[in-house]
Amino acid sequence: MKEAMQGELSSSLAAYRPGWSLPRAFYRDETVYRADLEQIWRKGWLFAGHGCEIRNPGDWLTLQVDTDSIIVIRGEDGAVRALNNVCRHRGSQILPAGSSGSAKRLVCPYHQWTYDTKGALTFCRGMHEFDRSGFSLKRVSCEMVEGLVFISLAETPPPFDSARELMAPFLRPQGFERAKVAKTADYEIHANWKLVWENNRECFHCNVNHPQYIKANWDHYNADDTSAEVRAAMDRAVARSEAKWAAAGLAVSHRETGMTRFPDVDVWYSANRTALVEGWVSESMDGKQVSTLMGAYRDADVGTVRARTLPNFWNHSSCDHGVSTRLLPAGPRKTLARVSWLVHEDAVEGRDYDLGKLMPFWQLTSEQDWAICERQQRGVDSTAYEPGPYSTYKEYNVDAFVRWYVKTLAAGASV
Amino acid sequence: MKEAMQGELSSSLAAYRPGWSLPRAFYRDETVYRADLEQIWRKGWLFAGHGCEIRNPGDWLTLQVDTDSIIVIRGEDGAVRALNNVCRHRGSQILPAGSSGSAKRLVCPYHQWTYDTKGALTFCRGMHEFDRSGFSLKRVSCEMVEGLVFISLAETPPPFDSARELMAPFLRPQGFERAKVAKTADYEIHANWKLVWENNRECFHCNVNHPQYIKANWDHYNADDTSAEVRAAMDRAVARSEAKWAAAGLAVSHRETGMTRFPDVDVWYSANRTALVEGWVSESMDGKQVSTLMGAYRDADVGTVRARTLPNFWNHSSCDHGVSTRLLPAGPRKTLARVSWLVHEDAVEGRDYDLGKLMPFWQLTSEQDWAICERQQRGVDSTAYEPGPYSTYKEYNVDAFVRWYVKTLAAGASV
Amino acid sequence: MKEAMQGELSSSLAAYRPGWSLPRAFYRDETVYRADLEQIWRKGWLFAGHGCEIRNPGDWLTLQVDTDSIIVIRGEDGAVRALNNVCRHRGSQILPAGSSGSAKRLVCPYHQWTYDTKGALTFCRGMHEFDRSGFSLKRVSCEMVEGLVFISLAETPPPFDSARELMAPFLRPQGFERAKVAKTADYEIHANWKLVWENNRECFHCNVNHPQYIKANWDHYNADDTSAEVRAAMDRAVARSEAKWAAAGLAVSHRETGMTRFPDVDVWYSANRTALVEGWVSESMDGKQVSTLMGAYRDADVGTVRARTLPNFWNHSSCDHGVSTRLLPAGPRKTLARVSWLVHEDAVEGRDYDLGKLMPFWQLTSEQDWAICERQQRGVDSTAYEPGPYSTYKEYNVDAFVRWYVKTLAAGASV
Repeated sequence: MKEAMQGELSSSLAAYRPGWSLPRAFYRDETVYRADLEQIWRKGWLFAGHGCEIRNPGDWLTLQVDTDSIIVIRGEDGAVRALNNVCRHRGSQILPAGSSGSAKRLVCPYHQWTYDTKGALTFCRGMHEFDRSGFSLKRVSCEMVEGLVFISLAETPPPFDSARELMAPFLRPQGFERAKVAKTADYEIHANWKLVWENNRECFHCNVNHPQYIKANWDHYNADDTSAEVRAAMDRAVARSEAKWAAAGLAVSHRETGMTRFPDVDVWYSANRTALVEGWVSESMDGKQVSTLMGAYRDADVGTVRARTLPNFWNHSSCDHGVSTRLLPAGPRKTLARVSWLVHEDAVEGRDYDLGKLMPFWQLTSEQDWAICERQQRGVDSTAYEPGPYSTYKEYNVDAFVRWYVKTLAAGASV
Repeated sequence: MKEAMQGELSSSLAAYRPGWSLPRAFYRDETVYRADLEQIWRKGWLFAGHGCEIRNPGDWLTLQVDTDSIIVIRGEDGAVRALNNVCRHRGSQILPAGSSGSAKRLVCPYHQWTYDTKGALTFCRGMHEFDRSGFSLKRVSCEMVEGLVFISLAETPPPFDSARELMAPFLRPQGFERAKVAKTADYEIHANWKLVWENNRECFHCNVNHPQYIKANWDHYNADDTSAEVRAAMDRAVARSEAKWAAAGLAVSHRETGMTRFPDVDVWYSANRTALVEGWVSESMDGKQVSTLMGAYRDADVGTVRARTLPNFWNHSSCDHGVSTRLLPAGPRKTLARVSWLVHEDAVEGRDYDLGKLMPFWQLTSEQDWAICERQQRGVDSTAYEPGPYSTYKEYNVDAFVRWYVKTLAAGASV
Repeated sequence: MKEAMQGELSSSLAAYRPGWSLPRAFYRDETVYRADLEQIWRKGWLFAGHGCEIRNPGDWLTLQVDTDSIIVIRGEDGAVRALNNVCRHRGSQILPAGSSGSAKRLVCPYHQWTYDTKGALTFCRGMHEFDRSGFSLKRVSCEMVEGLVFISLAETPPPFDSARELMAPFLRPQGFERAKVAKTADYEIHANWKLVWENNRECFHCNVNHPQYIKANWDHYNADDTSAEVRAAMDRAVARSEAKWAAAGLAVSHRETGMTRFPDVDVWYSANRTALVEGWVSESMDGKQVSTLMGAYRDADVGTVRARTLPNFWNHSSCDHGVSTRLLPAGPRKTLARVSWLVHEDAVEGRDYDLGKLMPFWQLTSEQDWAICERQQRGVDSTAYEPGPYSTYKEYNVDAFVRWYVKTLAAGASV
């Protein structure tokens, strides 16, 4: 990192006070944004998409991390890999940004340099002799866990195994490998990516902002407002299904009201299963099932599985569908979000599911959240903004996210 | 101010030559714009709106000074105050930017932190114990003069009293406190705010650019072109009404052709009453009255009252209506303007006034000026631009504005 | 050039490796773009337009070089001159950017400062006494060669004579002085101007990207793929017409397959005549003549004349029409292109030519190229981009362009 940039960053870091929201620069300065890219987005693991989106050999999708377009492709050997979408000849983009498709070879449209599905340069008519082996498409690290594809732009990414170990047992019964994406919605959020996460990490705002969400879930209750009645209802919901779930290998891992704690200052991934409100079997508008059962489920009463990884992914899944949200940074005050609805691969629209019933719960929740984030961005843009205190009852996860962020950023920045 | 910024500014200031237009950097550089914000926009008094726009307790409006949204609200005690539109919890914007409305309490839409109309934090469900008294909405200084609301973002604003003393006698008979805003028009001017002022401070450009304006007014004549006939007509216009006006406490304070001198290098406010052309009783397209008489006027023949304050306000008022222009900075090459037409609060559209007759005079004049300013911006953007001489006959006020600007900027910059 | 800027530029230059594409910064950084403007765009000769566009005294056109608008005007004495489009009073733009028209005097719309067609200030009502002779519109150097107008923003431009001497013999028979512009098309290309040139300097990409172009031309063949048949066809095409052309003073100057070599590291201009494919007499979709013969031509079989000057011009002309492309820089990642189709001044649309037949060949070729350039820009934007090798067979001119660029930039930067 350049020296001046580091100086500016250090003074911003020095102004941070644990338990309080971040100083203004973190939400809007180009310098911080560049550091976020270098230390977090280009070092950690990013959710890229679903394996079922590139089911067959040659299937690919692309995603854009700030300036960088990445290809995720299933090779002819069936393995999923990630490659930089930049021709090694003169740097042309090979596949259109944001597109998906299928190909046996990746041919640069400019001078037809041709790469195989592993990225090796196999053909370049018109060139003089040179060692082609040094001109493969640059590789990006790639890992799969139960149908979810993660990539890392780092030269030496952090270990992925511990994340896989923790998440796989929760994700496996959901069966994303035998799923399909029924619908995606793309959003341009005019807010810093950290505001999107702070919003995601508490349900303090749910009562007023997410009327549909709170009907299905418990995580808007906390130590300060979990009445005896709420506590009893939660206990009943867990008790009702516990034996059955345990038998099916679906043990509840979060039986508290309030959101499960995440992240830890050193842990960027988590997953859990928790109960839905009594009478609710799906995160749908009325709690009723909205598609055929997914994966290993034989009964609709499986509560909800949740997984999340920093800095760009969360998923909520019910017995019949899953919803993945992928964030990508596009500037200090702009974040791209893609929300994907997944159902069983054999489910047929119109027969087994109806988008009008599948989508609203998370479409509303997402769009309500983006509006909140943009409003907060406009507020922290003000020179009058100064950090405020996080509620110890309700914003422990926001505080945890910010601690994770500051530690991760500072660790990288001192390298 | 950061050192590098100050160095850049100093060298720009050193290049300034009194009597000539400003060096190029002043009209387009980010560094200068930042200094303008710090030294002028965030230190002086800004016109915010009209008291009649927030007539009742709880009525509020918001305005945007660069990145900062400000609430102007009439408290339940009837007093008008200004508050930063930034929640003290996590910085969300509380009221929508650019909106107006009415409320008994200001409730942040994010987590419902609730403030009273004076900005005190009165409610914050879900928070742990903390000293709420330190978390009022940040106050912005606010002053009223005869129905005009001014704010200052400075910690210690300059005194307002002298401005009030000078302006009040001119404004009082106009009766803005018993007025209403009949219409506002918002403009995005692609020009530096100082070009808008330079344009405002001379009528050298009026002959060709404002055909409607010069029919009503004298200020496009100056020492070099006030013929004996013009002089005589002006004298007649003043003489005709002087006794009557004096009796009504409306003495003419500017009986010269040419614009009244403003600003002085140390004075940022002024007001005066001057005569209209014979036969004209209102700044309307044909000079005829376009609404019911305002304020203390009992006769249409009252000439025209004018007031202006730097850096963002001017008003021209006739017997029957007033027009306020408010500028707000939105970038080195972007200025927002709001033009508001005011009439007597009891005037009824369709009966007492018709927007088609009320608006055109100042709508045309304003839009003609914005086009001029944008054209000048495109010219000073050129590397070929160099400062040119102001006419001592016709641009004395432009020169005075620039001297005021340079002095104000330099004073702050050396702090 | 400022010191920091020079340091940044030096380190970018140090990373350049001859024979390879440029390091990433050259295609997207503001610092490099500023240096390109200073050292290349504001120092060299720029194609501005055609003399026939300003045929009569008082006719003018304007063009925009980054921030600077330039007027090219034919004086009342018939000579063509260039002037900065910036009033010497307060810097207003005088003529609308991108417009053309005719006037006996240039009158600033702001305060009517009036200049004659040579730029002298002749009238400025309302000003005090001052020496007007110092307030002419600033002159821009201007040269004509056979109906093409070139300007230079440099105080001391490089010599133009050698360029005129080389190009005039090729251009003269084309008769641009007795031509008219039948149509112009304006494009905003989202790519650095150097990518547009690199694209222009090779036909390696033609086979796949320009199906219509390769039917008419030979320059997509090179040493590596000019088969005996291609060679023989090329020889036949030249032999067929050589005696006839020589007699008419139209000798072929490039009889090779492959593009004529340009630029040389020290030479920014070139022109040549080469053969079209047998059966083709015009760069039209079917090779047939699409307008009346131009200039000195008495026979359609004249091959094609080509001229190009760095940094902003190329022209391909056939017996019946010419096509000029003018580039102008508008940001690190934005280039404006104007493509103009010229025909004989007496040609009448509908009778002698039809835009539907005149335009497609170069409209398609141009638009195909802009799409390529934008795709390459998106690729080099990636942090994964690194320079790749130019084909010694096919990209010698791209390499030559880059060498010219680096030498020109470095020469200026060390001043």
